[in-house]
Amino acid sequence: MTAEWIQTEHWPIALAQTANVVDDAQLETIERGADRILSEIGIRFEGDPETLDLWRQAGARVVDDRAYLDGPALRAIIRASAPQQVRLRGRNPARDVVLGQGQRPVFAPVYGPPSVLLTDGRRQAGSLAHYQRFVGLAHDAAALSCTGHMMCVLNDVPEPLRPMAMALANLELSDKPLMGSIASPAAAEEVIDMVARAVGRPTGPGACNLLHLINSTPALTYKENALKCMRSIARCGEGAMVTSYMMMGATAPVTIAGALIQGYAEVLAGVALMQLWSPGVPVVMGIYAVPFSMRSMLPVFGDPAAHMVQMHAVRLARRLGVPVRGDGGVTSAKIDDAQAGYEGASANAAAILSGADFVLHSAGWLELGRCASFSKFAHEARMIAASLGLETTPGEPPLPLDPELQREFRQRIPH
Amino acid sequence: MTAEWIQTEHWPIALAQTANVVDDAQLETIERGADRILSEIGIRFEGDPETLDLWRQAGARVVDDRAYLDGPALRAIIRASAPQQVRLRGRNPARDVVLGQGQRPVFAPVYGPPSVLLTDGRRQAGSLAHYQRFVGLAHDAAALSCTGHMMCVLNDVPEPLRPMAMALANLELSDKPLMGSIASPAAAEEVIDMVARAVGRPTGPGACNLLHLINSTPALTYKENALKCMRSIARCGEGAMVTSYMMMGATAPVTIAGALIQGYAEVLAGVALMQLWSPGVPVVMGIYAVPFSMRSMLPVFGDPAAHMVQMHAVRLARRLGVPVRGDGGVTSAKIDDAQAGYEGASANAAAILSGADFVLHSAGWLELGRCASFSKFAHEARMIAASLGLETTPGEPPLPLDPELQREFRQRIPH
Repeated sequence: MTAEWIQTEHWPIALAQTANVVDDAQLETIERGADRILSEIGIRFEGDPETLDLWRQAGARVVDDRAYLDGPALRAIIRASAPQQVRLRGRNPARDVVLGQGQRPVFAPVYGPPSVLLTDGRRQAGSLAHYQRFVGLAHDAAALSCTGHMMCVLNDVPEPLRPMAMALANLELSDKPLMGSIASPAAAEEVIDMVARAVGRPTGPGACNLLHLINSTPALTYKENALKCMRSIARCGEGAMVTSYMMMGATAPVTIAGALIQGYAEVLAGVALMQLWSPGVPVVMGIYAVPFSMRSMLPVFGDPAAHMVQMHAVRLARRLGVPVRGDGGVTSAKIDDAQAGYEGASANAAAILSGADFVLHSAGWLELGRCASFSKFAHEARMIAASLGLETTPGEPPLPLDPELQREFRQRIPH
Repeated sequence: MTAEWIQTEHWPIALAQTANVVDDAQLETIERGADRILSEIGIRFEGDPETLDLWRQAGARVVDDRAYLDGPALRAIIRASAPQQVRLRGRNPARDVVLGQGQRPVFAPVYGPPSVLLTDGRRQAGSLAHYQRFVGLAHDAAALSCTGHMMCVLNDVPEPLRPMAMALANLELSDKPLMGSIASPAAAEEVIDMVARAVGRPTGPGACNLLHLINSTPALTYKENALKCMRSIARCGEGAMVTSYMMMGATAPVTIAGALIQGYAEVLAGVALMQLWSPGVPVVMGIYAVPFSMRSMLPVFGDPAAHMVQMHAVRLARRLGVPVRGDGGVTSAKIDDAQAGYEGASANAAAILSGADFVLHSAGWLELGRCASFSKFAHEARMIAASLGLETTPGEPPLPLDPELQREFRQRIPH
């Protein structure tokens, strides 16, 4: 393998095939490219002067809302304090999962769809009842060791109450680890507090009760809400999964190498920022990119180019020394058909074989992430369990949530 | 990674995930296990005294039809003469493919189904017309650089004429490399002669016009026809893909490690036999195993346990120094539905990511290999092309077959 692939890209899978001999020189080329972007173009941190002040204190040049950063210094900050391994706690200590350094990957369901597809073919707006059903399925699925967050949007719950309503469903119907809310810093903190009380164990280095999905806004930008949530989360000692989620040809270069360079620059800044706010706080990094179709003006989920980004993201994270996210199950298919199978299974295979530590969207994703399918969820949970050699029969029911806590939480979410 | 997996197997995918750090010690354990089987139990070579004589000449102890073999000596025979890289020729020299040593993997369609599934849902007995359509599709598919053999059985052609009828269809409708016949030694030789004349280039070391599917008959047996075909093929200087194709729990141990040990013993004997008949003849090795269900009494195609066998087969072949087969697309699904997609895509991903050099069954396989699906063929050809970064639009039409040869061949197959 030579660095030629960066120009030609006419055989991307070559890299996957030879993943075990990917040249460190290629990864260094990506790192150097990102370092140049960080120092020459910088990253915009919008609407959050506190973040800019922090960068200034860390020695960065800041012009307007743009900070010009030193890549090697960011890596040094991260390597000095970010845990190489992260324990994500469940209500049930036996359900704790550990991310990184050769541990079994953690699979979480789809995150974000506004609608759901029922097994009888009806498509409905997501609701609390659907959400609760997804939590129950995720609890029963041996493949999924994290019940995730927002498997569908709770369209029937007032928006301010949704973060708490989702967290409560995860806590009531499962004792596995879950993910936090990033609806707002206040919502993040409310859920963090609620889950901390339900877990009821003191936090410690390299451990957290929640992982939060913090995305940059490609190209090379973090938005106000993400920045404020990061600070809240970091100060609470909770975990963040800092991801650059790019559309190649729209919000990132059209080439795999170009997207990797941009994405690495973005997450390097975000992961370092978490460590500056709170050294030692658990962080998982993610770089993901899908081609953007100039014909349909839509991302092409299911395209294997994304697998190549995935393979390299894992290697870049290993060099950085933090656990890494993978993206499974993604597809552009609109129903749970052969296309859903071919694309979803390829994505899960690429995420698993890349060595990712936390695989998001591993079950249930349909229609570019706009829809959560109950049948695809079941198919994928079964496939992943088989890949892991796990039983596909339901395991133990969840430990009951403390009734007093449950009463108190329910009072805070009148629905 | 420790050798513990051989006993426990409760996390097979761990090996895939850490394929880049699979311990050579594990592979040595498999080799040692196989060596013990070869020397203590031996391999049966049924109905072919010439093969037994050859083993005697090579110094083996032969009792009845069983030869007790020396594993390290077989490896030495293979390493001394088997080509590490094999050129498989097409009628069109620009279509030649090269197997092994980091070359792009070659994909071939499904091999063997008695029936076909049309895109309108009708299921029919395979026929010459279906076969010709598959050859045309394989020619047009950029993903498939070999048009294979027996994409369906020609139920409407008298059995003795089928090998020639298939080869003629491959030669008339494509100028890509194809696979040979193993219906009988005579059929193998007839097709070898026919294709040699169509290719029209002198053979040379490490090159052949045909790959032939030579399977052992697990456990630890080669049958008369396979042995006689091997000799014919080897003496013609043509290529063999020597494979152990096992059902774990039926024709092989139920564990992955056990199946690998048995399969490696079988192919080591077969590959060495080819080299004894004709040193330097091209050989591709394959070890494949699927779990056998004690409930349905059927193999469970699509089960990820097979992926783990695949991953290790590639590494064992690399140590031996010969190109290696992968098995893509396999599934137990009966129609081209979500199950077909999940299972077929997982199998192709495992074959590609394992680093296999020749991926058989990569497109069209349905229903445990009993049925060839036109729509699955198209789906998989598209998915593989995307994985390889190839165009999905049809390429150049085939160079015309020499009219005189065509006339002569057609006369030999009156249908």
